[in-house]
Amino acid sequence: MTTSSLLPGFRFRPTDDELVGYYLKRKVDGLGTELDLIPVVQLYKYDPWDLPDKSFLPKRDMEWFFFCPRDRKYPNGLRTNRATASGYWKATGKDRKIACEPSVFALRKTLVFYRGRAPGGERMDWVMHEYRLCENLHEGSSNFVVGTDRR
Amino acid sequence: MTTSSLLPGFRFRPTDDELVGYYLKRKVDGLGTELDLIPVVQLYKYDPWDLPDKSFLPKRDMEWFFFCPRDRKYPNGLRTNRATASGYWKATGKDRKIACEPSVFALRKTLVFYRGRAPGGERMDWVMHEYRLCENLHEGSSNFVVGTDRR
Repeated sequence: MTTSSLLPGFRFRPTDDELVGYYLKRKVDGLGTELDLIPVVQLYKYDPWDLPDKSFLPKRDMEWFFFCPRDRKYPNGLRTNRATASGYWKATGKDRKIACEPSVFALRKTLVFYRGRAPGGERMDWVMHEYRLCENLHEGSSNFVVGTDRR
Repeated sequence: MTTSSLLPGFRFRPTDDELVGYYLKRKVDGLGTELDLIPVVQLYKYDPWDLPDKSFLPKRDMEWFFFCPRDRKYPNGLRTNRATASGYWKATGKDRKIACEPSVFALRKTLVFYRGRAPGGERMDWVMHEYRLCENLHEGSSNFVVGTDRR
């Protein structure tokens, strides 16, 4: 079953709760879903304008969803490497707690893309929401789900 | 297959083109769809606040979809009876042509619900979009699809 077999009129518009409590949780637990909706992509290997082509969902949505394993900046450190070939993603605001089932604890970080090199890059209109699952507060090891919007 | 078997995160947000060119066209042609998404309801037998319960789609959407055969005001006339027990639906603005495949011609009428008796009813916040298929410009005989929004 592929996404093209979905009935006309259905759009993938998940709530944060559904993204984390269903899709990300199943991915981290090694369980599949009926449809292979969200591809695994090494996000920072691409500039944001190259990401829409990697999406499995219809192109007319201006929002795309990917799983991405965390990429450490330093082998033993906790910082995530967020540089791409043409720029970098920079967090904006505070991480927000996602309310879902009581057993699942997750955070959402919002990032904006800057073209150029930090700290002098030029802010662009690409926004990413990064969701990470922090089971039992051990947040180090999870993959995360990302939705990228072009605003 | 029922709507509850849809994957999390999918919402029914059809474009006018999809509603008319797929759902209404198939209904009028006597063809089914994989999911029985849109019930046939005698719309004017109900007041708008009784309609959401008739929907097959999840209750959290504030938009509902129904098929309704046209109900003539007079046996030989073309006027549609739009009175309900507590009020009436009144058209607002002009009918709009729906752009879909070249072989399908359809119109969208927007109506607002008034409580009480015409012309002195009180305008309420229920809006209906009525789609009617007019194949070969013989618009008399088609069923129509309706989406009702509470605004």
